[in-house]
Amino acid sequence: MSHAPMPDAERLAEPMRSRWSPSVFDARHVIGDADVETLLTAAVWAPSAGNSQPWRFVVAPRGSAAHTAFVPHLSRGNSGWVPRASLVLVAGCEVVDVKDADTARYDLGQAAAHVTLQAVAMGLHAHQFGGFDKDAAAVALGVPAHVRLMAGIAVGVRGDPAEVPERDREREHRERARRPLGEVAMGLGWQPWRP
Amino acid sequence: MSHAPMPDAERLAEPMRSRWSPSVFDARHVIGDADVETLLTAAVWAPSAGNSQPWRFVVAPRGSAAHTAFVPHLSRGNSGWVPRASLVLVAGCEVVDVKDADTARYDLGQAAAHVTLQAVAMGLHAHQFGGFDKDAAAVALGVPAHVRLMAGIAVGVRGDPAEVPERDREREHRERARRPLGEVAMGLGWQPWRP
Repeated sequence: MSHAPMPDAERLAEPMRSRWSPSVFDARHVIGDADVETLLTAAVWAPSAGNSQPWRFVVAPRGSAAHTAFVPHLSRGNSGWVPRASLVLVAGCEVVDVKDADTARYDLGQAAAHVTLQAVAMGLHAHQFGGFDKDAAAVALGVPAHVRLMAGIAVGVRGDPAEVPERDREREHRERARRPLGEVAMGLGWQPWRP
Repeated sequence: MSHAPMPDAERLAEPMRSRWSPSVFDARHVIGDADVETLLTAAVWAPSAGNSQPWRFVVAPRGSAAHTAFVPHLSRGNSGWVPRASLVLVAGCEVVDVKDADTARYDLGQAAAHVTLQAVAMGLHAHQFGGFDKDAAAVALGVPAHVRLMAGIAVGVRGDPAEVPERDREREHRERARRPLGEVAMGLGWQPWRP
Protein backbone atom coordinates (compact mmCIF):
# COMPACT_ATOMS: atom_id res chain seq x y z
CA MET A 1 0.00 0.00 0.00
CA SER A 2 1.49 3.33 -0.99
CA HIS A 3 0.64 6.47 0.91
CA ALA A 4 1.95 10.00 0.65
CA PRO A 5 4.44 11.39 0.22
CA MET A 6 5.06 9.88 -3.18
CA PRO A 7 8.26 10.66 -5.12
CA ASP A 8 8.09 14.32 -6.21
CA ALA A 9 5.46 15.02 -3.54
CA GLU A 10 8.36 14.79 -1.07
CA ARG A 11 9.44 18.28 -2.08
CA LEU A 12 6.12 19.78 -0.99
CA ALA A 13 5.46 21.56 2.29
CA GLU A 14 3.05 20.13 4.84
CA PRO A 15 0.14 19.57 4.82
CA MET A 16 0.19 19.22 1.00
CA ARG A 17 3.04 16.71 1.30
CA SER A 18 1.15 14.17 3.40
CA ARG A 19 -2.34 14.55 2.00
CA TRP A 20 -3.93 11.42 0.60
CA SER A 21 -7.43 9.98 0.49
CA PRO A 22 -7.93 6.92 2.68
CA SER A 23 -11.02 4.78 2.21
CA VAL A 24 -10.81 3.01 5.56
CA PHE A 25 -12.09 5.24 8.34
CA ASP A 26 -12.43 4.37 12.01
CA ALA A 27 -16.19 3.98 12.53
CA ARG A 28 -15.75 4.49 16.29
CA HIS A 29 -14.02 7.89 16.09
CA VAL A 30 -16.23 10.84 16.96
CA ILE A 31 -15.31 14.34 15.77
CA GLY A 32 -15.86 17.21 18.19
CA ASP A 33 -17.84 20.32 17.32
CA ALA A 34 -14.76 22.52 17.77
CA ASP A 35 -12.91 20.50 15.13
CA VAL A 36 -15.87 20.73 12.75
CA GLU A 37 -15.92 24.47 13.28
CA THR A 38 -12.21 24.73 12.54
CA LEU A 39 -12.64 22.78 9.28
CA LEU A 40 -15.47 25.08 8.23
CA THR A 41 -13.40 28.11 9.17
CA ALA A 42 -10.65 26.84 6.86
CA ALA A 43 -13.23 26.65 4.06
CA VAL A 44 -14.51 30.18 4.49
CA TRP A 45 -11.00 31.66 4.53
CA ALA A 46 -10.30 30.32 1.05
CA PRO A 47 -10.06 33.01 -1.63
CA SER A 48 -12.88 33.53 -4.12
CA ALA A 49 -13.63 35.75 -7.10
CA GLY A 50 -14.49 39.22 -5.77
CA ASN A 51 -14.80 37.57 -2.32
CA SER A 52 -18.11 36.08 -3.52
CA GLN A 53 -17.77 33.07 -1.17
CA PRO A 54 -20.20 30.88 -3.12
CA TRP A 55 -19.50 27.76 -1.00
CA ARG A 56 -22.18 26.13 1.14
CA PHE A 57 -21.89 23.00 3.26
CA VAL A 58 -24.38 20.65 4.82
CA VAL A 59 -22.71 19.52 8.03
CA ALA A 60 -23.38 15.84 8.63
CA PRO A 61 -21.47 14.22 11.51
CA ARG A 62 -22.05 10.45 11.76
CA GLY A 63 -25.22 9.91 13.77
CA SER A 64 -26.79 13.30 12.95
CA ALA A 65 -30.15 13.68 11.21
CA ALA A 66 -28.37 15.16 8.17
CA HIS A 67 -26.07 12.10 7.97
CA THR A 68 -29.04 9.73 8.14
CA ALA A 69 -30.77 11.68 5.37
CA PHE A 70 -27.67 11.76 3.16
CA VAL A 71 -26.33 8.20 3.36
CA PRO A 72 -29.08 6.47 1.31
CA HIS A 73 -28.09 8.60 -1.71
CA LEU A 74 -24.49 7.39 -1.89
CA SER A 75 -23.49 5.41 -4.97
CA ARG A 76 -23.00 1.71 -4.42
CA GLY A 77 -19.22 2.09 -4.51
CA ASN A 78 -19.30 4.77 -1.81
CA SER A 79 -21.99 3.28 0.40
CA GLY A 80 -19.55 1.14 2.37
CA TRP A 81 -16.68 3.43 3.21
CA VAL A 82 -18.25 6.91 3.43
CA PRO A 83 -20.62 6.19 6.34
CA ARG A 84 -17.68 5.03 8.50
CA ALA A 85 -16.12 8.51 8.38
CA SER A 86 -16.72 10.76 11.40
CA LEU A 87 -18.12 13.59 9.32
CA VAL A 88 -19.45 14.26 5.86
CA LEU A 89 -19.55 17.81 4.55
CA VAL A 90 -21.87 17.92 1.55
CA ALA A 91 -20.46 20.75 -0.54
CA GLY A 92 -22.42 22.90 -2.95
CA CYS A 93 -22.17 26.30 -4.52
CA GLU A 94 -24.66 29.08 -4.67
CA VAL A 95 -25.42 29.85 -8.30
CA VAL A 96 -27.39 33.06 -8.42
CA ASP A 97 -26.16 34.29 -11.76
CA VAL A 98 -25.58 31.54 -14.33
CA LYS A 99 -22.65 33.38 -15.87
CA ASP A 100 -20.80 33.07 -12.56
CA ALA A 101 -21.52 29.34 -12.21
CA ASP A 102 -18.17 28.19 -13.61
CA THR A 103 -16.27 30.44 -11.23
CA ALA A 104 -18.42 29.33 -8.31
CA ARG A 105 -17.41 25.71 -8.95
CA TYR A 106 -13.74 26.69 -9.12
CA ASP A 107 -14.09 28.58 -5.84
CA LEU A 108 -15.91 25.69 -4.17
CA GLY A 109 -13.03 23.45 -5.17
CA GLN A 110 -10.66 25.84 -3.42
CA ALA A 111 -12.72 25.78 -0.23
CA ALA A 112 -12.81 21.96 -0.35
CA ALA A 113 -9.03 21.90 -0.71
CA HIS A 114 -8.67 24.17 2.32
CA VAL A 115 -10.93 21.86 4.40
CA THR A 116 -8.96 18.83 3.26
CA LEU A 117 -5.57 20.35 4.04
CA GLN A 118 -6.73 21.72 7.39
CA ALA A 119 -7.93 18.19 8.25
CA VAL A 120 -4.47 16.78 7.48
CA ALA A 121 -2.85 19.45 9.67
CA MET A 122 -5.17 18.36 12.52
CA GLY A 123 -4.19 14.69 12.26
CA LEU A 124 -7.37 13.81 10.40
CA HIS A 125 -7.85 12.64 6.83
CA ALA A 126 -10.33 13.79 4.22
CA HIS A 127 -11.49 11.94 1.14
CA GLN A 128 -13.65 13.80 -1.35
CA PHE A 129 -16.16 11.98 -3.50
CA GLY A 130 -18.63 12.80 -6.25
CA GLY A 131 -20.52 9.51 -6.29
CA PHE A 132 -23.94 10.27 -4.85
CA ASP A 133 -27.34 11.19 -6.29
CA LYS A 134 -27.09 14.96 -6.12
CA ASP A 135 -30.70 15.72 -6.93
CA ALA A 136 -32.09 13.19 -4.47
CA ALA A 137 -29.63 14.25 -1.75
CA ALA A 138 -30.60 17.90 -2.24
CA VAL A 139 -34.26 17.04 -1.72
CA ALA A 140 -33.54 14.86 1.31
CA LEU A 141 -31.35 17.53 2.93
CA GLY A 142 -33.62 20.46 2.07
CA VAL A 143 -31.03 22.23 -0.08
CA PRO A 144 -32.61 25.18 -1.93
CA ALA A 145 -32.72 25.22 -5.74
CA HIS A 146 -30.11 27.98 -6.14
CA VAL A 147 -27.48 25.78 -4.46
CA ARG A 148 -25.96 23.01 -6.60
CA LEU A 149 -24.41 20.09 -4.76
CA MET A 150 -21.03 19.15 -6.19
CA ALA A 151 -19.13 16.83 -3.85
CA GLY A 152 -18.95 15.20 -0.46
CA ILE A 153 -15.98 15.48 1.86
CA ALA A 154 -15.60 12.52 4.23
CA VAL A 155 -13.43 13.36 7.26
CA GLY A 156 -12.16 11.14 10.02
CA VAL A 157 -9.22 9.12 11.27
CA ARG A 158 -7.89 6.09 9.50
CA GLY A 159 -9.32 2.76 10.61
CA ASP A 160 -8.18 -0.83 10.60
CA PRO A 161 -8.29 -2.30 7.07
CA ALA A 162 -9.12 -5.71 8.57
CA GLU A 163 -12.52 -4.35 9.61
CA VAL A 164 -13.76 -3.48 6.11
CA PRO A 165 -14.76 -5.57 3.10
CA GLU A 166 -12.14 -6.42 0.49
CA ARG A 167 -13.61 -3.90 -1.95
CA ASP A 168 -13.05 -0.95 0.38
CA ARG A 169 -9.64 -2.22 1.41
CA GLU A 170 -8.65 -2.54 -2.26
CA ARG A 171 -9.56 1.07 -2.88
CA GLU A 172 -6.53 2.19 -0.89
CA HIS A 173 -4.18 -0.02 -2.91
CA ARG A 174 -4.78 1.90 -6.12
CA GLU A 175 -1.58 3.42 -7.35
CA ARG A 176 -1.18 7.10 -6.54
CA ALA A 177 0.18 8.41 -9.79
CA ARG A 178 0.15 11.73 -11.58
CA ARG A 179 0.76 12.93 -15.12
CA PRO A 180 4.31 14.18 -15.68
CA LEU A 181 4.67 17.97 -15.52
CA GLY A 182 5.31 18.05 -19.26
CA GLU A 183 1.65 17.14 -19.89
CA VAL A 184 0.29 19.77 -17.54
CA ALA A 185 2.69 22.74 -17.60
CA MET A 186 3.03 24.51 -20.93
CA GLY A 187 4.89 27.43 -22.41
CA LEU A 188 3.96 29.73 -25.28
CA GLY A 189 2.47 27.79 -28.18
CA TRP A 190 1.43 24.94 -25.88
CA GLN A 191 4.85 23.37 -25.87
CA PRO A 192 5.75 21.45 -22.71
CA TRP A 193 7.35 23.82 -20.21
CA ARG A 194 10.97 23.00 -19.52
CA PRO A 195 12.74 24.54 -16.53
CA MET B 1 -3.82 47.58 6.37
CA SER B 2 -5.06 44.25 7.67
CA HIS B 3 -3.32 41.05 6.70
CA ALA B 4 -3.83 37.45 7.80
CA PRO B 5 -4.44 35.96 10.20
CA MET B 6 -7.76 37.64 10.80
CA PRO B 7 -9.87 36.79 13.87
CA ASP B 8 -11.14 33.19 13.45
CA ALA B 9 -8.44 32.50 10.89
CA GLU B 10 -6.06 32.43 13.86
CA ARG B 11 -7.30 28.93 14.70
CA LEU B 12 -6.17 27.57 11.32
CA ALA B 13 -2.97 25.65 10.68
CA GLU B 14 -0.26 27.05 8.44
CA PRO B 15 -0.15 27.78 5.58
CA MET B 16 -3.94 28.35 5.51
CA ARG B 17 -3.60 30.67 8.51
CA SER B 18 -1.30 33.19 6.85
CA ARG B 19 -2.59 33.09 3.29
CA TRP B 20 -3.73 36.38 1.85
CA SER B 21 -3.65 38.03 -1.58
CA PRO B 22 -1.26 40.97 -1.82
CA SER B 23 -1.50 43.31 -4.79
CA VAL B 24 1.92 44.87 -4.38
CA PHE B 25 4.62 42.56 -5.70
CA ASP B 26 8.34 43.22 -5.87
CA ALA B 27 9.01 43.79 -9.58
CA ARG B 28 12.72 43.02 -9.06
CA HIS B 29 12.27 39.58 -7.53
CA VAL B 30 13.04 36.70 -9.87
CA ILE B 31 11.64 33.24 -9.19
CA GLY B 32 13.91 30.27 -9.84
CA ASP B 33 12.93 27.33 -12.03
CA ALA B 34 13.14 24.94 -9.07
CA ASP B 35 10.56 27.00 -7.19
CA VAL B 36 8.29 27.08 -10.24
CA GLU B 37 8.60 23.32 -10.49
CA THR B 38 7.70 22.89 -6.81
CA LEU B 39 4.58 25.05 -7.23
CA LEU B 40 3.51 22.98 -10.23
CA THR B 41 4.19 19.78 -8.32
CA ALA B 42 1.85 21.02 -5.57
CA ALA B 43 -0.83 21.53 -8.22
CA VAL B 44 -0.55 18.05 -9.70
CA TRP B 45 -0.73 16.37 -6.28
CA ALA B 46 -4.14 17.89 -5.63
CA PRO B 47 -6.97 15.34 -5.62
CA SER B 48 -9.41 15.14 -8.55
CA ALA B 49 -12.46 13.14 -9.51
CA GLY B 50 -11.31 9.66 -10.54
CA ASN B 51 -7.76 11.08 -10.65
CA SER B 52 -8.76 12.85 -13.90
CA GLN B 53 -6.23 15.69 -13.30
CA PRO B 54 -7.98 18.14 -15.66
CA TRP B 55 -5.72 21.08 -14.71
CA ARG B 56 -3.38 22.70 -17.23
CA PHE B 57 -1.10 25.70 -16.69
CA VAL B 58 0.67 28.10 -18.98
CA VAL B 59 3.89 28.94 -17.14
CA ALA B 60 4.72 32.61 -17.57
CA PRO B 61 7.61 33.95 -15.48
CA ARG B 62 8.11 37.71 -15.82
CA GLY B 63 10.24 38.30 -18.89
CA SER B 64 9.28 35.08 -20.68
CA ALA B 65 7.65 34.98 -24.11
CA ALA B 66 4.48 33.59 -22.52
CA HIS B 67 4.38 36.51 -20.07
CA THR B 68 4.79 39.04 -22.88
CA ALA B 69 1.98 37.36 -24.81
CA PHE B 70 -0.34 37.24 -21.81
CA VAL B 71 -0.02 40.68 -20.24
CA PRO B 72 -1.85 42.70 -22.95
CA HIS B 73 -5.01 40.71 -22.19
CA LEU B 74 -5.26 41.71 -18.53
CA SER B 75 -8.24 43.80 -17.51
CA ARG B 76 -7.49 47.44 -16.80
CA GLY B 77 -7.76 46.85 -13.05
CA ASN B 78 -5.22 44.03 -13.19
CA SER B 79 -2.82 45.54 -15.72
CA GLY B 80 -0.82 47.40 -13.09
CA TRP B 81 -0.22 44.90 -10.33
CA VAL B 82 -0.14 41.53 -12.11
CA PRO B 83 2.90 42.20 -14.33
CA ARG B 84 5.01 43.07 -11.27
CA ALA B 85 4.62 39.52 -9.90
CA SER B 86 7.52 37.14 -10.54
CA LEU B 87 5.34 34.51 -12.17
CA VAL B 88 1.91 34.12 -13.65
CA LEU B 89 0.40 30.67 -14.00
CA VAL B 90 -2.51 30.87 -16.43
CA ALA B 91 -4.82 28.09 -15.25
CA GLY B 92 -7.29 26.20 -17.40
CA CYS B 93 -9.05 22.89 -17.42
CA GLU B 94 -9.26 20.26 -20.06
CA VAL B 95 -12.89 19.74 -20.97
CA VAL B 96 -13.13 16.65 -23.15
CA ASP B 97 -16.58 15.55 -22.08
CA VAL B 98 -19.00 18.41 -21.44
CA LYS B 99 -20.76 16.53 -18.65
CA ASP B 100 -17.51 16.55 -16.69
CA ALA B 101 -16.91 20.27 -17.16
CA ASP B 102 -18.35 21.32 -13.80
CA THR B 103 -16.19 18.83 -11.97
CA ALA B 104 -13.13 19.88 -13.96
CA ARG B 105 -13.59 23.47 -12.75
CA TYR B 106 -13.97 22.29 -9.16
CA ASP B 107 -10.78 20.23 -9.51
CA LEU B 108 -8.89 23.12 -11.12
CA GLY B 109 -9.86 25.24 -8.12
CA GLN B 110 -8.33 22.63 -5.85
CA ALA B 111 -5.08 22.62 -7.80
CA ALA B 112 -4.97 26.43 -7.67
CA ALA B 113 -5.47 26.30 -3.90
CA HIS B 114 -2.57 23.86 -3.59
CA VAL B 115 -0.31 26.15 -5.64
CA THR B 116 -1.33 29.12 -3.52
CA LEU B 117 -0.76 27.38 -0.20
CA GLN B 118 2.54 25.88 -1.33
CA ALA B 119 3.63 29.42 -2.28
CA VAL B 120 2.82 30.68 1.22
CA ALA B 121 4.80 27.80 2.75
CA MET B 122 7.79 28.85 0.59
CA GLY B 123 7.71 32.46 1.77
CA LEU B 124 6.02 33.63 -1.42
CA HIS B 125 2.54 35.03 -1.94
CA ALA B 126 -0.03 34.17 -4.57
CA HIS B 127 -2.97 36.26 -5.73
CA GLN B 128 -5.48 34.67 -8.07
CA PHE B 129 -7.44 36.75 -10.54
CA GLY B 130 -10.13 36.24 -13.15
CA GLY B 131 -9.90 39.63 -14.83
CA PHE B 132 -8.40 38.98 -18.25
CA ASP B 133 -9.76 38.33 -21.73
CA LYS B 134 -9.81 34.54 -21.69
CA ASP B 135 -10.53 34.05 -25.38
CA ALA B 136 -7.89 36.50 -26.53
CA ALA B 137 -5.32 35.15 -24.06
CA ALA B 138 -6.00 31.59 -25.24
CA VAL B 139 -5.29 32.61 -28.84
CA ALA B 140 -2.17 34.58 -27.89
CA LEU B 141 -0.78 31.71 -25.81
CA GLY B 142 -1.73 28.96 -28.27
CA VAL B 143 -4.07 27.18 -25.87
CA PRO B 144 -6.01 24.42 -27.67
CA ALA B 145 -9.81 24.61 -27.91
CA HIS B 146 -10.47 21.76 -25.48
CA VAL B 147 -8.76 23.70 -22.67
CA ARG B 148 -10.81 26.49 -21.05
CA LEU B 149 -8.86 29.21 -19.28
CA MET B 150 -10.34 30.05 -15.90
CA ALA B 151 -7.94 32.12 -13.80
CA GLY B 152 -4.47 33.54 -13.41
CA ILE B 153 -2.28 32.95 -10.38
CA ALA B 154 0.23 35.74 -9.75
CA VAL B 155 3.12 34.59 -7.54
CA GLY B 156 5.96 36.59 -6.04
CA VAL B 157 7.23 38.35 -2.97
CA ARG B 158 5.60 41.40 -1.50
CA GLY B 159 6.93 44.73 -2.71
CA ASP B 160 7.09 48.26 -1.39
CA PRO B 161 3.65 49.93 -1.52
CA ALA B 162 5.37 53.29 -2.11
CA GLU B 163 6.44 52.06 -5.55
CA VAL B 164 2.97 51.47 -6.94
CA PRO B 165 0.11 53.78 -7.93
CA GLU B 166 -2.52 54.64 -5.35
CA ARG B 167 -5.05 52.37 -7.05
CA ASP B 168 -2.93 49.26 -6.59
CA ARG B 169 -1.94 50.27 -3.06
CA GLU B 170 -5.63 50.74 -2.17
CA ARG B 171 -6.43 47.23 -3.32
CA GLU B 172 -4.62 45.82 -0.29
CA HIS B 173 -6.58 47.97 2.12
CA ARG B 174 -9.86 46.28 1.31
CA GLU B 175 -11.30 44.68 4.38
CA ARG B 176 -10.73 40.94 4.58
CA ALA B 177 -14.11 39.77 5.78
CA ARG B 178 -16.06 36.55 5.51
CA ARG B 179 -19.68 35.52 5.92
CA PRO B 180 -20.44 34.11 9.37
CA LEU B 181 -20.51 30.30 9.50
CA GLY B 182 -24.28 30.40 10.02
CA GLU B 183 -24.71 31.57 6.41
CA VAL B 184 -22.46 28.88 4.97
CA ALA B 185 -22.78 25.79 7.19
CA MET B 186 -26.21 24.21 7.32
CA GLY B 187 -27.92 21.26 8.96
CA LEU B 188 -30.88 19.19 7.80
CA GLY B 189 -33.63 21.39 6.34
CA TRP B 190 -31.13 24.14 5.52
CA GLN B 191 -31.14 25.52 9.05
CA PRO B 192 -27.90 27.19 10.15
CA TRP B 193 -25.61 24.60 11.69
CA ARG B 194 -24.97 25.15 15.37
CA PRO B 195 -22.17 23.33 17.12
